Amino acid sequence: MELTRRETMLGALVTGVAASMPAQAKVPLSDKPAPGYYRYRVGEIEITAVNDGVSAMPITDDFVRNVSKAEVNKTLESLFMAPNVYAGPYNPILINTGRQLALVDTGTGEAGFTSSNGINGRLMLSLAAAGVDPKDIDVVIISHYHGDHINGLIKADGSLAFPNAEIAAPLDEHRFWMDDNEMSRAATPRIDATFKNARRVMTPDVLKRIRPYEAGKEVIAGVTAVSTPGHTPGHMSLVVASGSKSVYVQGDVTHAPWLFARNPGWHFMLDVDPVAAEATRRKVYDMLVAERMAVQGFHYPFPALGHVERTSTGYREVLVQWSPVL
Amino acid sequence: MELTRRETMLGALVTGVAASMPAQAKVPLSDKPAPGYYRYRVGEIEITAVNDGVSAMPITDDFVRNVSKAEVNKTLESLFMAPNVYAGPYNPILINTGRQLALVDTGTGEAGFTSSNGINGRLMLSLAAAGVDPKDIDVVIISHYHGDHINGLIKADGSLAFPNAEIAAPLDEHRFWMDDNEMSRAATPRIDATFKNARRVMTPDVLKRIRPYEAGKEVIAGVTAVSTPGHTPGHMSLVVASGSKSVYVQGDVTHAPWLFARNPGWHFMLDVDPVAAEATRRKVYDMLVAERMAVQGFHYPFPALGHVERTSTGYREVLVQWSPVL
Repeated sequence: MELTRRETMLGALVTGVAASMPAQAKVPLSDKPAPGYYRYRVGEIEITAVNDGVSAMPITDDFVRNVSKAEVNKTLESLFMAPNVYAGPYNPILINTGRQLALVDTGTGEAGFTSSNGINGRLMLSLAAAGVDPKDIDVVIISHYHGDHINGLIKADGSLAFPNAEIAAPLDEHRFWMDDNEMSRAATPRIDATFKNARRVMTPDVLKRIRPYEAGKEVIAGVTAVSTPGHTPGHMSLVVASGSKSVYVQGDVTHAPWLFARNPGWHFMLDVDPVAAEATRRKVYDMLVAERMAVQGFHYPFPALGHVERTSTGYREVLVQWSPVL
Repeated sequence: MELTRRETMLGALVTGVAASMPAQAKVPLSDKPAPGYYRYRVGEIEITAVNDGVSAMPITDDFVRNVSKAEVNKTLESLFMAPNVYAGPYNPILINTGRQLALVDTGTGEAGFTSSNGINGRLMLSLAAAGVDPKDIDVVIISHYHGDHINGLIKADGSLAFPNAEIAAPLDEHRFWMDDNEMSRAATPRIDATFKNARRVMTPDVLKRIRPYEAGKEVIAGVTAVSTPGHTPGHMSLVVASGSKSVYVQGDVTHAPWLFARNPGWHFMLDVDPVAAEATRRKVYDMLVAERMAVQGFHYPFPALGHVERTSTGYREVLVQWSPVL
């Protein structure tokens, strides 16, 4: 290959530039992560995923009740994830219909933020990054009464985190967890703790703002509730629809899809009724596959939007590519 | 189920709250997408993916030379993507070693930003969001001379986009594309256009700052060049290493992995030597699989970091979950 005139210039010029390299970069290393929000449109409705962080839950022997810890760890290894820990993302979403701004689920709350692992309880940071003041939220829609969905309703001092919002809660879910007779029959310490946590969060101020909602009806205009019981007795999903577009907001129909959508027969320790949860999961995912419908999953990897394909053993999430524009 | 005292309160209180719902959300619908940057650490080195946007390239008959347009469209459909268009992401990265701040590849440039689809040429927006002034970049490292990697070296007026940076360019790549004899033998109009574009971008000001680099040597401390020819004659990848951690910065060893990692035998229209490109691709991906090494891909979905698993037909990318902290 013949040297060009331009190339001949290179040797002479490079030394001078390289010699001027600084001993320290002008931009210091940062401790600041990227903001945890992501915005997209469903027809005329705007959805913003607002990340609350990621769990660091130890994988116990009963993490999946019908599968060994060794098999869970083997799966995590195949996914290039650390063993013995469940890094499950928490992704509440904002739904702005133009007329109302709704927050779906509230994350692990201020208490989560100060927990030892320190990587959850970040919803308020993500809301601020997205330019949303908690006072501006008109309605909080709760999918179910597990702590990572309701704890963020109150601040560390017990006051309302979203002081101007009504709180739309599934009627059957509220009935179950607030029923003292049901609590007295709690099958496991974990379920008993969920009853007690619901009483901690459902302060008089919270209860005053609760509006129960039911399946088959709109919670707010454009957002319809769908009954998806099993994970908890009154667990609800939502269909957000505008024009010809829609997205299925699944709540905890599956926990992290890389485990529980790919293995729909795995019974997660937090499923109150694992058999009903599996039946719901298969029904919803069969529908998502048949309809090629987009799904927004609370425990999907941020920004937590995808589709679902069928595999020989279950389903696989196909995440939507990040778009640089709405 | 028995009604509790708290639940009995619900009916009475809800109507009042619902009636106060506003006719318009206090937060208007936004046109502002989330900022396109994402930061993580490799040992003591900080990497920031800075998204330049996404292409909207028509799928022509020769988009994959040895596969029909119908088969490409069928694959896109299976991935829940629109047919007839290649939505290929562009993801330059920043590497901050503490001593130097490097930008690897420069995106489609200001001209891209004003192109008809308007979703590329966004690097400067992403840099600003990440808090980086183009003046603070010490070195730009170029993987190869295709326009989406070099065009951002200059602004629309032809001046230097990174006025204080040296420009590290692969020696063989520079030699090839700047050689007028090679240009006179250009095999296709597309390759001829790449020669001409290189001459447009390599202004005297750019050429003055170029420092050629070679495989097997550090381009800057902690960043070693690896020869990966085929996509272009002098195409280079980089290994970023710090302590026991490393990541393989692959450039265009594959274009979008959902097409070209999963089908390593597909010959992409932009591969100058498709047979050599396939050989490089298989060699690099076999290594990534064997070493379980993380890969940062320019055309991977933002934030463009993943691992690779072997499949019956090739490889599959397993993207790293978004982390809320560094």
